Amino acid sequence: MATTVQTTDLTGQMLIAGAPVRGAGNEIRGIDPQTGSPIEPAYAYGDRSHVEDACAAAADAFSPYRSAPIETRAQFLEAIATNLESLGDALVDRAHLETGLPRPRLTGEVGRTAGQLRLFAAVLREGGWNQARIDPAQPDRTPLPRPDIRQRSVPLGPVAVFGASNFPLAFSVAGGDTASALAAGCPVVVKAHDAHPGTSELVGRAITEAVASSGLPAGIFSLLYGFGPELGTALVTDPRIKAVGFTGSRAGGMALVAAASARPEPIPVYAEMSAVNPVFLLGGALADRGAELARAFVGSLTLGSGQFCTNPGLVIGVDGPELETFVAAAREAVTASTPTVMLTTGIADNFRGGVAALEAEAALIARGSEADAPAAPCRAALFATDAPTFLGSAALRSEVFGASGVVVRCSDAAEMLRLADSLEGQLTATIHADESDHGQAGELLDVLELKAGRILFNGWPTGVEVGHAMVHGGPFPSTSDSRTTSVGARAIERFLRPVCYQDAPKSLLPSAIADGNPDGLWRRIDGNLTQD
Amino acid sequence: MATTVQTTDLTGQMLIAGAPVRGAGNEIRGIDPQTGSPIEPAYAYGDRSHVEDACAAAADAFSPYRSAPIETRAQFLEAIATNLESLGDALVDRAHLETGLPRPRLTGEVGRTAGQLRLFAAVLREGGWNQARIDPAQPDRTPLPRPDIRQRSVPLGPVAVFGASNFPLAFSVAGGDTASALAAGCPVVVKAHDAHPGTSELVGRAITEAVASSGLPAGIFSLLYGFGPELGTALVTDPRIKAVGFTGSRAGGMALVAAASARPEPIPVYAEMSAVNPVFLLGGALADRGAELARAFVGSLTLGSGQFCTNPGLVIGVDGPELETFVAAAREAVTASTPTVMLTTGIADNFRGGVAALEAEAALIARGSEADAPAAPCRAALFATDAPTFLGSAALRSEVFGASGVVVRCSDAAEMLRLADSLEGQLTATIHADESDHGQAGELLDVLELKAGRILFNGWPTGVEVGHAMVHGGPFPSTSDSRTTSVGARAIERFLRPVCYQDAPKSLLPSAIADGNPDGLWRRIDGNLTQD
Repeated sequence: MATTVQTTDLTGQMLIAGAPVRGAGNEIRGIDPQTGSPIEPAYAYGDRSHVEDACAAAADAFSPYRSAPIETRAQFLEAIATNLESLGDALVDRAHLETGLPRPRLTGEVGRTAGQLRLFAAVLREGGWNQARIDPAQPDRTPLPRPDIRQRSVPLGPVAVFGASNFPLAFSVAGGDTASALAAGCPVVVKAHDAHPGTSELVGRAITEAVASSGLPAGIFSLLYGFGPELGTALVTDPRIKAVGFTGSRAGGMALVAAASARPEPIPVYAEMSAVNPVFLLGGALADRGAELARAFVGSLTLGSGQFCTNPGLVIGVDGPELETFVAAAREAVTASTPTVMLTTGIADNFRGGVAALEAEAALIARGSEADAPAAPCRAALFATDAPTFLGSAALRSEVFGASGVVVRCSDAAEMLRLADSLEGQLTATIHADESDHGQAGELLDVLELKAGRILFNGWPTGVEVGHAMVHGGPFPSTSDSRTTSVGARAIERFLRPVCYQDAPKSLLPSAIADGNPDGLWRRIDGNLTQD
Repeated sequence: MATTVQTTDLTGQMLIAGAPVRGAGNEIRGIDPQTGSPIEPAYAYGDRSHVEDACAAAADAFSPYRSAPIETRAQFLEAIATNLESLGDALVDRAHLETGLPRPRLTGEVGRTAGQLRLFAAVLREGGWNQARIDPAQPDRTPLPRPDIRQRSVPLGPVAVFGASNFPLAFSVAGGDTASALAAGCPVVVKAHDAHPGTSELVGRAITEAVASSGLPAGIFSLLYGFGPELGTALVTDPRIKAVGFTGSRAGGMALVAAASARPEPIPVYAEMSAVNPVFLLGGALADRGAELARAFVGSLTLGSGQFCTNPGLVIGVDGPELETFVAAAREAVTASTPTVMLTTGIADNFRGGVAALEAEAALIARGSEADAPAAPCRAALFATDAPTFLGSAALRSEVFGASGVVVRCSDAAEMLRLADSLEGQLTATIHADESDHGQAGELLDVLELKAGRILFNGWPTGVEVGHAMVHGGPFPSTSDSRTTSVGARAIERFLRPVCYQDAPKSLLPSAIADGNPDGLWRRIDGNLTQD
């Protein structure tokens, strides 16, 4: 079961339905963001013919995969998790080389990725995702008898997944989108992110081996490398693809949304795109622990070079000495922050540009220190402005991907509330509040519930628990579909749709909605939950 | 509580946040489709300023409405139901006059509409729609403690609803989309369908009175009249509108999808559009009761002049004497069918054109008799063709709205299966099968599960139960979003999104996810359903 892939084994090939395939297009290599040096081997881009092959295989594999026993599907997800863990240092080393992310973070990310896969195995076995419902026949009802009506969920079909740059494991080849789509019964075609091609190959092979050892059709997983506007668009517009998972920039996500909407058959796109993740500092909390909050904020801001979708890029407080205590401590912490490396030189360039745009419209509080310059440097940056300036500036309201933030000084609580109400959709919103702040916090909460997918109190948004109650999502533009989450148990629902069976013969009923409840599911009978 | 509106009271005014408002644009009147005569009073189209007023009121009303006690919301829905029923003959008479639909059908539709509202009241009280989940804190977890994470659902915001022509009550002003949106906590702005303006005013006033008697903010409901491409587009593109419900033509639905996608903030559109609703006649059933099936088929085909989204427009069987028995009996039944009236002259014109297009590509089996011609006549039509011709003809595969169907003769079961696989998305698919047919039926079911929202056995699709397990939806182009249903309990989910609360102070937690389960909900604690 355990895979024995070593980094030295890397072939530079794509994986199409279990078979290694060499692309014929431009060659790319991973780049060490510390040195700027390319890393062997080279990966050649695929083209339309590879998209065609992967989608044809996915479509062929769909029926047998969705019909396989749920326990087989659950064990398959667990096998992927085991295979990933078995890669051990080889995986962490390669990911570190390609992304510059610290090894402990990457070790944790392997665990998180394996944990996600196992969560979905548990979700599959629990069975609530079936949404099993039975409205029994009422043959004696007048004026018309009621037929027997039952409902369950079926998978949408093959799903295209775009690997994210900033989570080379947890939101890439075997990441949350892949895990939830495979859990739902959907074959997956992944477009690898160019920033970690070797990591992608290692993970792709771990999945491919799990497919084979589980006896499932090879077509349920393919891994392609290619140019986004070409291969990515070909993938999203292939008629056999029925949904898309994406984590990345707003421009990238919206391009996929546009391509998917323009298809003869439009399909759902789950694009997790951008957020500034506002943090509200209320008076009591600020008075009690302003300096402590500042240090914790800068810790969250600079974690992983700020390369989190949930990075807290906006801090809002009421002007006054307590806020100045916070600003002073934040200045100190940012100044003391050590320079780090970003995922790619492109991301570092964008970060530099974003910081310059902020600098043009807000006052600098502090920059992190500049030291030996890596190829993709990140120097933390913190700015301050007032609410009217913030409200009038598109630049200040936009996400700068990286360790950069803006502190907004409001004149009073009412202005803070207005500012909250003016925000675009967010992945997270955070409130720091003491008991004495709860009145104001309640008013803010009413507004923020409509703005964000997750609302935190007295914490920092950069950690995202993988569990049953998590929501990693939110109103546009934080995602393209606020009705879902891309992290946590409910992510499986994105790739399912309900089907209703009216007066179906008992021998043809799927077990989830069969008489006698053979799967032991919680089901709604006439609307009431029961395990009978 | 009971309303006393009489048809003679009709004012020809719109209703904006409780206030009657006279439009200033083109005047329309209801048209008696039997005679072609206009019916008083005149309704003047609204314009952008009315959209602005209605949306501003809806946005203002949203927060108080979503915060009102769930019991208040449930009683409000019940009050609408009671008010509709209190209208009695006045409502049925007016709807009959405007639509030509038979009075018994319309009496039934009042009951169905009231029933839908009461179903959502029950759904609200049961509370599963909250999707309440709690992952309790684990302060001792290593390496990091787990925070307290809770999830519930919140409404999306104001919803635009477009009344359908073919269900002047059950899918119009107080129909399924309005009921499910109001249940979810979303204010509703309805654009009335031009085909039944007086019916719309009566129903709009019944809702408005229920809003007032329930002590809810007037802005949660407005009713506008207007030109679709202008007023409808203005409504869908208003930034305060957060979702759209629509039942109608494919062209109309796709225009709304395009307008909603092109907004700076794209929003979900639930457009229920078109289907041919295939019916598969398997050998055993056909041999056993071919003539009986034919008569029942023609009954379903011609019901309500065939003006159902679920009208069975396509019948598929294996060529042979059993199928010819069916065709002969269907010929007899269609020939004997009496001419009926359609909803509007425009629909009758489209029907005539659609039938002519079928006639050009398939053989006529029979037409219904022609008698005294109403203004909007419907003569049933049935055609026959073979599978290759059907597969090659766009016209034969397209919905003709009205009492028109095509019988496709397949050479064998394999061709039947290929034909099923070639179909676009459908609202329904029906299989007539005996015990001896179950092997073939199982193969068909595997295909049809991916094609349709509802699969019926040995029945006819034109009746749609309103219950907990119903799915009225399906893959594109039957709807624009296959992940949902527009009929039945789960329709409320279309207008909700999940929000997660991390370490929220107990005093600020919504009751659905508060400690001690004050609402008595079924909740998932660490993923496990419990009422504790």
